Amino acid sequence: MDKLRQLNDRIIRRVNVNLDEFDFDTEGYVNNSLEHDKMLKFYAFYGITSQHPIYFHFKNSNIAGSYFLGQCFVSRSAIYKSDVRGDELKRKGDTIRYKTDVPLIEDERITIRDSLLYKTLVHSNSHNLESPEEFSIQNTISAHYVNIHGTTLQGCFLGPFATVDQMNLHSCIVGEFSYVQAGELFHRKIDPGTVWIRSEHFEFKYKFKKNILEHFVGVNSSHQPRGLIYDFVKEREQDYEKLFDVMNLEPIDVPVNSAVSRYAVVKGKKRIGENVLVAQRAFLENATMGDGSNAQENTYIINSTLSGNCITAHGGKIIHADIGFETFVGFNSFLNGKAHAPIDIGEGCIVMPHTIIDPDGPIKIPSEHLIWGFILSQEDVKNNTIAFDDLAEARDTLVIGKMVFSGKGSVFIDVFRKRIGQILLANGALFDKGEKRGHAQDDQNISFNIIQPYTTGKLKGLYPSIRINP
Amino acid sequence: MDKLRQLNDRIIRRVNVNLDEFDFDTEGYVNNSLEHDKMLKFYAFYGITSQHPIYFHFKNSNIAGSYFLGQCFVSRSAIYKSDVRGDELKRKGDTIRYKTDVPLIEDERITIRDSLLYKTLVHSNSHNLESPEEFSIQNTISAHYVNIHGTTLQGCFLGPFATVDQMNLHSCIVGEFSYVQAGELFHRKIDPGTVWIRSEHFEFKYKFKKNILEHFVGVNSSHQPRGLIYDFVKEREQDYEKLFDVMNLEPIDVPVNSAVSRYAVVKGKKRIGENVLVAQRAFLENATMGDGSNAQENTYIINSTLSGNCITAHGGKIIHADIGFETFVGFNSFLNGKAHAPIDIGEGCIVMPHTIIDPDGPIKIPSEHLIWGFILSQEDVKNNTIAFDDLAEARDTLVIGKMVFSGKGSVFIDVFRKRIGQILLANGALFDKGEKRGHAQDDQNISFNIIQPYTTGKLKGLYPSIRINP
Repeated sequence: MDKLRQLNDRIIRRVNVNLDEFDFDTEGYVNNSLEHDKMLKFYAFYGITSQHPIYFHFKNSNIAGSYFLGQCFVSRSAIYKSDVRGDELKRKGDTIRYKTDVPLIEDERITIRDSLLYKTLVHSNSHNLESPEEFSIQNTISAHYVNIHGTTLQGCFLGPFATVDQMNLHSCIVGEFSYVQAGELFHRKIDPGTVWIRSEHFEFKYKFKKNILEHFVGVNSSHQPRGLIYDFVKEREQDYEKLFDVMNLEPIDVPVNSAVSRYAVVKGKKRIGENVLVAQRAFLENATMGDGSNAQENTYIINSTLSGNCITAHGGKIIHADIGFETFVGFNSFLNGKAHAPIDIGEGCIVMPHTIIDPDGPIKIPSEHLIWGFILSQEDVKNNTIAFDDLAEARDTLVIGKMVFSGKGSVFIDVFRKRIGQILLANGALFDKGEKRGHAQDDQNISFNIIQPYTTGKLKGLYPSIRINP
Repeated sequence: MDKLRQLNDRIIRRVNVNLDEFDFDTEGYVNNSLEHDKMLKFYAFYGITSQHPIYFHFKNSNIAGSYFLGQCFVSRSAIYKSDVRGDELKRKGDTIRYKTDVPLIEDERITIRDSLLYKTLVHSNSHNLESPEEFSIQNTISAHYVNIHGTTLQGCFLGPFATVDQMNLHSCIVGEFSYVQAGELFHRKIDPGTVWIRSEHFEFKYKFKKNILEHFVGVNSSHQPRGLIYDFVKEREQDYEKLFDVMNLEPIDVPVNSAVSRYAVVKGKKRIGENVLVAQRAFLENATMGDGSNAQENTYIINSTLSGNCITAHGGKIIHADIGFETFVGFNSFLNGKAHAPIDIGEGCIVMPHTIIDPDGPIKIPSEHLIWGFILSQEDVKNNTIAFDDLAEARDTLVIGKMVFSGKGSVFIDVFRKRIGQILLANGALFDKGEKRGHAQDDQNISFNIIQPYTTGKLKGLYPSIRINP
């Protein structure tokens, strides 16, 4: 395993240099996290379909447990139990909208270099105008269950359960359970539990209290994640094992326009509607997925009903809940209802990323509301939600509980709704009579190349170099 | 599947052109053999170890079910359920012995182009002096359960259960169940059931009677194999399914110096000695493998004991038999003993390739005998065996039953014994205190890359192009 250790050490040093000003050392995080034995046992896989441009090139790396779809290049990196999904990579001729349209001169590609991502989801829908053909992650370490979503990274450390979304980050530290979507950031340290969205026209900020955050997602003295959300995920890990042990699984019976990944856990009763996407590593138990709804990677839908066109963004957890039509549940949200304390959310709501609802009694939130922060009881709802009609009135600064919003509320709602429309479109929720294909249609019939490391010899722990072309 | 059909058609036409003078059409063989649906479902795999030079390049082909180990290049070909094992490829600096030593200027590589091999084993130990760095198969079609063993092929058709061994063949047809090891052959048609070995110093010839051969291996009106040996193999095919359905199998407990492939079937009682090799797709049922013995690909050891340093060459079938120390059982031999009619073969014997023993009562063959042809009863033994001491006396021509030997018997025995020594060495039978490693030691801890085809779209049926380097 010398080569793998050398690789890790080299990445640690490179990232530390980038974060020097913060006096921050990533070594403790990495060395207590990586299970080198498992990195020999797990296999990586690369999805092959007729719908995704195929290019996979990989060298001097370990990719244990990773899942690749679309064009990727990986070099001098360790990617452990990650999902790198490139099914939203742009193609040659596509454009990024900025002040004018910026067209791509070749197919976009994910590039990961000198980085260490463990149990991290990378999903492209990049908005990097500087190099639209390359969605790149360099000199970066990300901890457990991070979401990297269309975010260019250079010299960063991302703590457990952090999400970085459609932006560029240079030499930044993002604390555990923080969500950041803020354009471009240089040499910044984001505190744990920060939910921050910033654009030209508005800004949204919320920060979890330290003691509350630590109950749900903390970091222990060995720099490893702890807390209720981490325990929740750990408890269900073994349910995935049989999916990875068996080569061919009897496919689950679903409508022809819906895709349920053979690497998703589906337990108990289930109802899968039309145009539904249940992604790789999603977890369904007694779940109803209404037409056009989706459960993205690392989501959990347990004893719950998603009525239709509902989005469960990466890492979202929905338990004992009823979710109304076209409601969006953001990244890593933890809607922890119980049988005696169900959660009922109306239609067309937006549950902000990294929202925690952990009630002791029933919770009801009406339609057309924005929901954020931390809700323990029906009492907390008023300080953690706002009706869109009221938000649309906001012109300057709005403070509700710990949330501070500034800018135009109406623009915020428009931008969010537009993004929800794009997500539904991309996921195939709107597929009709052969038009508006999306992941729910294109991610069927994936065949997988399974890729394994050297288990002995001087390259033990690394994978041979592999290049896959059409 | 258009692309796969186009590929097949192109190969058929290329091979037919090469065999034009024989008025031979390969189309019936191919089109009635290939199950295109299965070629989408089966996966191919490439073995990765620290002991074998890694290079695998593959394009415009289908390789359903194939197993690759060592350096291979495959282009415009379909290889269906084959084992292409390159673990005896020579390395840069190795030499082939001819009149002088011919050194290799780079590592040897298997190259398969414009060919269609179905359920065919390719195993290298080539003796091609003309291009020692390339072991090549071109414009060739091989039918079910063919063994291609170090044989350069150009423009050939090989019938079911044929074996071609350490030679060069150009524009030849080899009939079903024929074994040929005859240096270089141009534009020849070898009748079914021919066992032919020819060298500078001797020649061995045997030919099965037509009606006997058809009982064991025939070809039906759709050009497909039939007969007792084919039925025997077909009956056991489903036993392999679970091996390919499961990703990780609990390894079978064997001595540290022995290798039992996780893709071998092992049923009933078993005893595995030291330095034993049980290869991929071998089949063991109530089998004792004495120290240093091996069961190569597509062999069956059932209710039998191999005492020690026994070789079961590719496709050998040993049933209700006791095999003495250092006895060699050649390619595709069918030793079909029964509980009431066991086969007892002494020490140091050579069972010639493609020998059939199918007794109704017990058969006993003493030590140090050459065994060939077709034995139904103890009575047949005298016409199908000879003691080495007697064979060593042969100076010119020796005719026993249907066997004709010419040349020096002593040289024949020496050459064969030398080859047996090489096979034992290559297979790791002689491994001792870290010296004389062979396949039994090097083929442990193989990890496998699993490679799958497009299942939809215009490339359906083909595999994406893949290149694997160290």
